[in-house]
Amino acid sequence: MSLHLYRDLDALRKRLLQLGGLVERSLQDAASAFLQRDAALAQKVVAGDRAVDEAEVRLEEECLKVLALHHCVAGDLRFVVAVLKVNADLERMGDAAESIAARALQTCALPPFGLPTEFPHMLTMALGMARKALECLAREDARLARQVLEDDLAVDAAQRRMFEVLQDRMKTEPASVDAAVLTLSTSRQVERVADLATNIAEDVIFLHEGEIVRHKRSQLRLV
Amino acid sequence: MSLHLYRDLDALRKRLLQLGGLVERSLQDAASAFLQRDAALAQKVVAGDRAVDEAEVRLEEECLKVLALHHCVAGDLRFVVAVLKVNADLERMGDAAESIAARALQTCALPPFGLPTEFPHMLTMALGMARKALECLAREDARLARQVLEDDLAVDAAQRRMFEVLQDRMKTEPASVDAAVLTLSTSRQVERVADLATNIAEDVIFLHEGEIVRHKRSQLRLV
Repeated sequence: MSLHLYRDLDALRKRLLQLGGLVERSLQDAASAFLQRDAALAQKVVAGDRAVDEAEVRLEEECLKVLALHHCVAGDLRFVVAVLKVNADLERMGDAAESIAARALQTCALPPFGLPTEFPHMLTMALGMARKALECLAREDARLARQVLEDDLAVDAAQRRMFEVLQDRMKTEPASVDAAVLTLSTSRQVERVADLATNIAEDVIFLHEGEIVRHKRSQLRLV
Repeated sequence: MSLHLYRDLDALRKRLLQLGGLVERSLQDAASAFLQRDAALAQKVVAGDRAVDEAEVRLEEECLKVLALHHCVAGDLRFVVAVLKVNADLERMGDAAESIAARALQTCALPPFGLPTEFPHMLTMALGMARKALECLAREDARLARQVLEDDLAVDAAQRRMFEVLQDRMKTEPASVDAAVLTLSTSRQVERVADLATNIAEDVIFLHEGEIVRHKRSQLRLV
């Protein structure tokens, strides 16, 4: 590998991890804002998504430049394509954080609502998956990536339970409908974070083992 | 452009349009299955997603091969990267069709439920966006692509109205909760189809005008 190519690929990796750090912070803030009904923190997340969007566009341009400057093959090519894909997934994770924050703002306008225990549990798991996905990317650790794939099943199961609990509650407490629907709608965004972390983990596996693992597990979402 | 490169890029375009055709049919079938409570058709969609997944993996591999064989630059490079991105978006659209079909199966198990008029309207609009996105891709028509971006706002507005209508109904008719939640949950998948059509349209604009238009409209989803 030429010294120039090495330097350029390393710059892509650094930018990607920076973007990952930005998105992880947004997710944590969005989760806290929702759980603690903290409107100011939610607004900070919404305002911060612009920086994520800009970083994503810049990184895609950098990837195109590297591909145009160097004729990448084999592992190097797979790396640049993986950066392009993970970049898009991180940006969408940033959008999910923004959506969770927007729902936190709506929650602040509703009367207090006791969240089912599955909700913070699901949130913690999804945030853990996002953190692990970024860690396996940084450490190039395909084994950790496979753990992320397993965690996704637990998030889906927690969400299914939460749907049952909240649907039962709406039937007996009509006054809870608005907050329950908002919580279910937020949980869809949390599930999206878990799905995107799974995509990233799949890309890390592809990068290091050359195996495309996506679609090998059932992708069916029933809730 | 060398004859080989021309032939390879054309093959990518054809495969992408084939995949688009497959996904469009899945979407139409999933929509019919949901509206007509047709379990057999829903099952056909669920079973058919495997073909979409396989086509996506194959097309990604073809893109990597083209990039490895030819040192693509400028418009050709943008084209291959756009194929990679649209390929991923089409596969996710296929997943959304599968999810809509899975919910159609759940609907069949519930008592009849009068859908709010916004639902078929939203479905027709989102399917129209998917069709237009594929059309602008085939015809390389950036003007049509900009229309898709405008349609997305109307889909979001229809969804917001539907949330209001169904939340009100759940408050007065507790027996409607299960079907209403399922409908809202399906509408999230329909919204996802519209969002993915928007992504594809943005990629067509990028391909033909070199301008990255994503993130220039507000991406905030409040429902």
